Amino acid sequence: MKFEKGQKLLFIGDSITDCDRAKPEGEGLFGALGQGYVSYVDALLQSVYPELGIRVINKGISGNNVLNLNARWQEDVLDQKPDWLSIMIGINDVWRQYDTPFIKDRHVYIEEYEQTLRKLVKETKPQVEGLILMTPYYLESNVNDAMRQTMDQYGEVVKHIAKENNCILVDTQDGFNNVLKELYSATLAWDRVHPTAAGHMVLTRALLKEIGFDWNRI
Amino acid sequence: MKFEKGQKLLFIGDSITDCDRAKPEGEGLFGALGQGYVSYVDALLQSVYPELGIRVINKGISGNNVLNLNARWQEDVLDQKPDWLSIMIGINDVWRQYDTPFIKDRHVYIEEYEQTLRKLVKETKPQVEGLILMTPYYLESNVNDAMRQTMDQYGEVVKHIAKENNCILVDTQDGFNNVLKELYSATLAWDRVHPTAAGHMVLTRALLKEIGFDWNRI
Amino acid sequence: MKFEKGQKLLFIGDSITDCDRAKPEGEGLFGALGQGYVSYVDALLQSVYPELGIRVINKGISGNNVLNLNARWQEDVLDQKPDWLSIMIGINDVWRQYDTPFIKDRHVYIEEYEQTLRKLVKETKPQVEGLILMTPYYLESNVNDAMRQTMDQYGEVVKHIAKENNCILVDTQDGFNNVLKELYSATLAWDRVHPTAAGHMVLTRALLKEIGFDWNRI
Amino acid sequence: MKFEKGQKLLFIGDSITDCDRAKPEGEGLFGALGQGYVSYVDALLQSVYPELGIRVINKGISGNNVLNLNARWQEDVLDQKPDWLSIMIGINDVWRQYDTPFIKDRHVYIEEYEQTLRKLVKETKPQVEGLILMTPYYLESNVNDAMRQTMDQYGEVVKHIAKENNCILVDTQDGFNNVLKELYSATLAWDRVHPTAAGHMVLTRALLKEIGFDWNRI
Amino acid sequence: MKFEKGQKLLFIGDSITDCDRAKPEGEGLFGALGQGYVSYVDALLQSVYPELGIRVINKGISGNNVLNLNARWQEDVLDQKPDWLSIMIGINDVWRQYDTPFIKDRHVYIEEYEQTLRKLVKETKPQVEGLILMTPYYLESNVNDAMRQTMDQYGEVVKHIAKENNCILVDTQDGFNNVLKELYSATLAWDRVHPTAAGHMVLTRALLKEIGFDWNRI
Amino acid sequence: MKFEKGQKLLFIGDSITDCDRAKPEGEGLFGALGQGYVSYVDALLQSVYPELGIRVINKGISGNNVLNLNARWQEDVLDQKPDWLSIMIGINDVWRQYDTPFIKDRHVYIEEYEQTLRKLVKETKPQVEGLILMTPYYLESNVNDAMRQTMDQYGEVVKHIAKENNCILVDTQDGFNNVLKELYSATLAWDRVHPTAAGHMVLTRALLKEIGFDWNRI
Amino acid sequence: MKFEKGQKLLFIGDSITDCDRAKPEGEGLFGALGQGYVSYVDALLQSVYPELGIRVINKGISGNNVLNLNARWQEDVLDQKPDWLSIMIGINDVWRQYDTPFIKDRHVYIEEYEQTLRKLVKETKPQVEGLILMTPYYLESNVNDAMRQTMDQYGEVVKHIAKENNCILVDTQDGFNNVLKELYSATLAWDRVHPTAAGHMVLTRALLKEIGFDWNRI
Amino acid sequence: MKFEKGQKLLFIGDSITDCDRAKPEGEGLFGALGQGYVSYVDALLQSVYPELGIRVINKGISGNNVLNLNARWQEDVLDQKPDWLSIMIGINDVWRQYDTPFIKDRHVYIEEYEQTLRKLVKETKPQVEGLILMTPYYLESNVNDAMRQTMDQYGEVVKHIAKENNCILVDTQDGFNNVLKELYSATLAWDRVHPTAAGHMVLTRALLKEIGFDWNRI
Repeated sequence: MKFEKGQKLLFIGDSITDCDRAKPEGEGLFGALGQGYVSYVDALLQSVYPELGIRVINKGISGNNVLNLNARWQEDVLDQKPDWLSIMIGINDVWRQYDTPFIKDRHVYIEEYEQTLRKLVKETKPQVEGLILMTPYYLESNVNDAMRQTMDQYGEVVKHIAKENNCILVDTQDGFNNVLKELYSATLAWDRVHPTAAGHMVLTRALLKEIGFDWNRI
Repeated sequence: MKFEKGQKLLFIGDSITDCDRAKPEGEGLFGALGQGYVSYVDALLQSVYPELGIRVINKGISGNNVLNLNARWQEDVLDQKPDWLSIMIGINDVWRQYDTPFIKDRHVYIEEYEQTLRKLVKETKPQVEGLILMTPYYLESNVNDAMRQTMDQYGEVVKHIAKENNCILVDTQDGFNNVLKELYSATLAWDRVHPTAAGHMVLTRALLKEIGFDWNRI
Repeated sequence: MKFEKGQKLLFIGDSITDCDRAKPEGEGLFGALGQGYVSYVDALLQSVYPELGIRVINKGISGNNVLNLNARWQEDVLDQKPDWLSIMIGINDVWRQYDTPFIKDRHVYIEEYEQTLRKLVKETKPQVEGLILMTPYYLESNVNDAMRQTMDQYGEVVKHIAKENNCILVDTQDGFNNVLKELYSATLAWDRVHPTAAGHMVLTRALLKEIGFDWNRI
Repeated sequence: MKFEKGQKLLFIGDSITDCDRAKPEGEGLFGALGQGYVSYVDALLQSVYPELGIRVINKGISGNNVLNLNARWQEDVLDQKPDWLSIMIGINDVWRQYDTPFIKDRHVYIEEYEQTLRKLVKETKPQVEGLILMTPYYLESNVNDAMRQTMDQYGEVVKHIAKENNCILVDTQDGFNNVLKELYSATLAWDRVHPTAAGHMVLTRALLKEIGFDWNRI
Repeated sequence: MKFEKGQKLLFIGDSITDCDRAKPEGEGLFGALGQGYVSYVDALLQSVYPELGIRVINKGISGNNVLNLNARWQEDVLDQKPDWLSIMIGINDVWRQYDTPFIKDRHVYIEEYEQTLRKLVKETKPQVEGLILMTPYYLESNVNDAMRQTMDQYGEVVKHIAKENNCILVDTQDGFNNVLKELYSATLAWDRVHPTAAGHMVLTRALLKEIGFDWNRI
Repeated sequence: MKFEKGQKLLFIGDSITDCDRAKPEGEGLFGALGQGYVSYVDALLQSVYPELGIRVINKGISGNNVLNLNARWQEDVLDQKPDWLSIMIGINDVWRQYDTPFIKDRHVYIEEYEQTLRKLVKETKPQVEGLILMTPYYLESNVNDAMRQTMDQYGEVVKHIAKENNCILVDTQDGFNNVLKELYSATLAWDRVHPTAAGHMVLTRALLKEIGFDWNRI
Repeated sequence: MKFEKGQKLLFIGDSITDCDRAKPEGEGLFGALGQGYVSYVDALLQSVYPELGIRVINKGISGNNVLNLNARWQEDVLDQKPDWLSIMIGINDVWRQYDTPFIKDRHVYIEEYEQTLRKLVKETKPQVEGLILMTPYYLESNVNDAMRQTMDQYGEVVKHIAKENNCILVDTQDGFNNVLKELYSATLAWDRVHPTAAGHMVLTRALLKEIGFDWNRI
Repeated sequence: MKFEKGQKLLFIGDSITDCDRAKPEGEGLFGALGQGYVSYVDALLQSVYPELGIRVINKGISGNNVLNLNARWQEDVLDQKPDWLSIMIGINDVWRQYDTPFIKDRHVYIEEYEQTLRKLVKETKPQVEGLILMTPYYLESNVNDAMRQTMDQYGEVVKHIAKENNCILVDTQDGFNNVLKELYSATLAWDRVHPTAAGHMVLTRALLKEIGFDWNRI
């Protein structure tokens, strides 16, 4: 298991990470971590590795794209001095191109996405013990779907940057693909983006698998 | 894995099961299963065994004791014709004796508890494929604590009835004891009863362990 | 223009028709007709054919399938004695099969859908001057999409019954297909069902086209 | 059709334009354009000319008069760099003279109205491709009504400035007059100002007629 | 002054009488009489004739027409055994004909209005010491306005019945006409029906004048 | 009648004047003047002297004492340039001495009260056409009651200053005394301070009497 | 101390007893006993005589008079089988005569008050171990005050009935008189009825003194 | 009794002191002192020693630890110039170590606790007539409980500082221990920290005992 005793694990991203977490601090009791995969990861760490005492912080903000992350990076990431950082961003960068195609200044095209994400990763990697890059996803099983194709390209960017900077890659799309073989997208998410608890569990398992979580430990 | 394709799994109990589930139906989208272990079990079944399509229903009601279950058993259990039934009841039966000791008519003493639970189990076992009995618990590591001792006695009743009626036993207290070795009760629940997400994950893992859930399946 | 002076035009259906209309009466001032295509049809009739004084009533109820309509048909349709009746139903009959596949008793399969719709049309046709059947739709341009295919089958049922009973057919899917050639589904509806104002305008124009509405009248 | 592919169309005015639009941005999904004619224009453009991808922005603010527009002109109009600008203002400039006659500093008399509007039009015309001036209106069919007479004078000012500056004129009063021949004012607006959906459709059709909108296009 | 010590004065009517009064009882402290003329009449009686101790009850209900009054007459009037009864009804009977002209079953035409009002007056007069009939009104100074003309006809019916049955007539329209000579309708009521405090004071003075109220008493 | 055409009449005071008036402006439609005597005065002026068009402004703030008035005098009185100013202050200055006797820094003893009020009157008198001083009151008929005695002393101060500075005096206590002869205090105000509508009518009549209001004018 | 181990002490009365208690049950945790003297009595019994485990129930209902008590006596008193019953009623019976003097049917005059209270006491005394009668009170130190005089008469009735039926008398007025020597009524209650925490402590101490409560016990 | 006429008694602490008090001022009517022991102390002082007129102020803030007090000490204590100061702090300083053990920067370990408390006491003692130090407590009767042990250590620090600086010590844990002999912790507080009214009465009596309060005075 890659996390060690007393380490601080910080999550940053958009509404999938946010999921109604307490603002501004994003940690503590009473649902402060939100209702999504961040809370599930924390719950599994605490219930299966209680002795490690991992401190989990959720700095996701609904609607964010990679430029929004960049604007608040110092305060919400670097100043927090996390040992581990997990980034999942890109869904809104793509989605705005498809749900409000006419409002161009809300679109983050792939060049700017890659350039900004790389800058954040390069700047942060040396200051953390480990960096986890989670790909954006789109719960659309038709690989020829326009938005799915674009999302996959952004996924490739993440994979490429992860490899290039020796980060832990969590291929969320791959995690969902397994489930989408059996279930239609609407079962996981009416809008193919904000998933049910089952969808959040897919993200949780995809991440914990990559950090060597032992499910059968206790 | 004990659950088979298309089976209906019904949960009944008190606030730990309820956890703000949709009433009256207790199933469907948009958090209808509540925010606790029932939702986590459903999420894990759907994300790891999507092809089974297990239908999960949550009939927990906050504040219930075993007598309350008995009063609504026909409508909320038998009429639902579940394949699998999971019962977790007894915490309030004990707790009222300790938080409002003077209001005797809210207490369900152990004889009546055992008698009622046994009647429900005997009546239901033949009508379901499988019956899961989850012990009540108290997140107090001091085994000499008055309420903890009483809760353990009610736990023994559950174990006894489970054994006697060939039910699947889920020893929740045992699940928590492992974590309580590392963490003080208040980390899991300020009131030692309504747990954090981590507490609900302990209940989830304890139950799935007993039904042969393969955590490393995908 | 098929509507004549002083006639009563009643709309019935699910959330696409309901759209937050006033309940129970579904008519009058202050947004009583809801925020969707029913209100747009009424607004266009009143602003372009003010002298006709068509009385528009909205009896849509969110979440309804064809069985729900059948259960309230006497009170919400026949007792209202409309001159014209417009029915748009079927989206939920299909959608439940895809968003909650495990809850079978919420699914209305095509045989029962056809049988019930036919019964309602046959029973009602003689009691109205004109009957408009609007096909269900799914804002998914990929015709091979599982749910889109099923929805198209239900659309065929509507076309068939319309033809068989000399009803006015409004092919909503066809209306949307034109727009979907230019715009991705998410631009019209995040969940591919509940559309933006633009989507409701597509439904409005599709219906008014079939009743000979003269857009250039004033 | 005067609008071309990818152009930005900005609406500014008072509560008739505002109609509960999202503030401050006034664009995007989920009713951001409000419930009135601005949303109807956008819906008709998107459903009939989807390929043009016109970006519509609503900067109306309830209660505004022409002086309020002037105070926020830079930020809410010029900085937005619209291709097309539509202005409908003047109702409150008149109305305050008639509903709170004693509070003089809320009245904008015709000289100041004309002078300010002309200044805004002259300043803006060179910076946009096209400028649409919509007359204020009063849903009172009695042309001798004091407030109707004053409103008509302000209407004349708008017509005069439109002509003088080669703007597209939308004579809203004229649009309503047609309907008022058949319907009493209270049918369109209890207060003869804030209209029903039918009233907003009159404004929509009056505007689209002037920009060459082809109603029978699809 | 026509009211005597300890008498019960009951007001019944529509929203102008109701004005947010406490339901169901319509009397007592803390604004129970509502914010309109009924409260003003009570306040003036109590502050100028405190020794009389007149008991004032408000049974107005918003949206009511004369048929609605008839339906609740026994419970809300006769069972209350008032010494004095004041009726102001008819505005909605007319208004629905002009704001929702197509919904005929909400209109109460003048024959039915006269017939019902006469029946109520004849039935009640013998059971009370005094009966006050307040004419409906429409704050539109243009006597040729369609709705104003109809309202005046209903006013004539009230005058006729008052005279015929020796009731005290309060000509509210006449009261408003004096003020409308100086002020435009919108100053008294945006919708020409629900007046400002000034409008309610006109109604109050019109009523008190008819019962011999001595304004200069203290 | 002392008020002339187009004059501005400003009221300032505590909760008896405030009475839920719109803040900050304290004028306009929709109950902006509050529910108390200020609204009644405005309603009577508009309904009986409509041609004068008196502009009424309400700058009362609940809980204020004379020091609070002093702190906002420039902005809420002098900058408003009223023709007529009515001040009613002093109830809280006394009341705090009797309901929270131990919190001395909330008490405004009579010397400081007189000194501050005199300063405000002297400073303002030259800048207005007329200044109305309304005495504070206490709805306690027992003149030997401690708080009533103190309130009467503050009343004397007001009378003295009024006389000294040629202001119009409105003896509110005297107005209430007449009514208190017939009615017990609780009928007018549970707390002997915040009166019912009847109490506000006493204040209204006391003020209008002093400015020569002709109740029988129309 | 008159209360013995495990006994049930039931309080019934009006808003002074109710004080926002949980309805309908009036017992349990989380402020179920309300914020007044009933909660203080329970808190003092539990903190000073924890071993007795007295079960306290609050059946007070705001606005009640003795007739209201009579109407619910069976369900809210006799069916509860209390060992000890405390009744405090009469304030509203008097108050309505003074705050709404014209609404006679809300007044409970002294004959009916005495007759009803005696009937309840006689009927209940044999069924309880002990009966506590608390006098009504009025926080008005002027004994010649009209309402105070009436309240004192009702107090005498209570004293008389208590003596006559060997009940424990709690002279609340006497308790308050001591404090009123030092503090003006408004310090204890703006409306001289609903007291501050200090007022409720006076009631608490008056009651506990009569049952032999040992304040210095621990 | 140690408090003298007209003295100011200020309470500062965490949620046990705060208990929903009015912010920012923390004094006055209508529950401004909150619902806990501060309000009970004030109520008992006012009802038993009304002539002293002690001014009680509540500056507790929920969630505070000793560092938070230090940060606002000047404004909320020294600037208030109290005669008597009561400090109860330390519960959160300990609790965070046990409910969120991983969030170290929320823990205030004993050295820093002692050092900060001593600094505040030393700085303040000379500026007040008397200083009351109330120990933190934990409603856990098992003295070997980890959190109870830590809390007792912090209690010892308070006792030590009290003795060292001649402060009045209120041993709250000792007060609770007496009750805990008879009642299980959950009867006083589900979370063993936020007590019922009975718990607040224990704190009240413990404090008043130390200042020589004569319970039998009146």
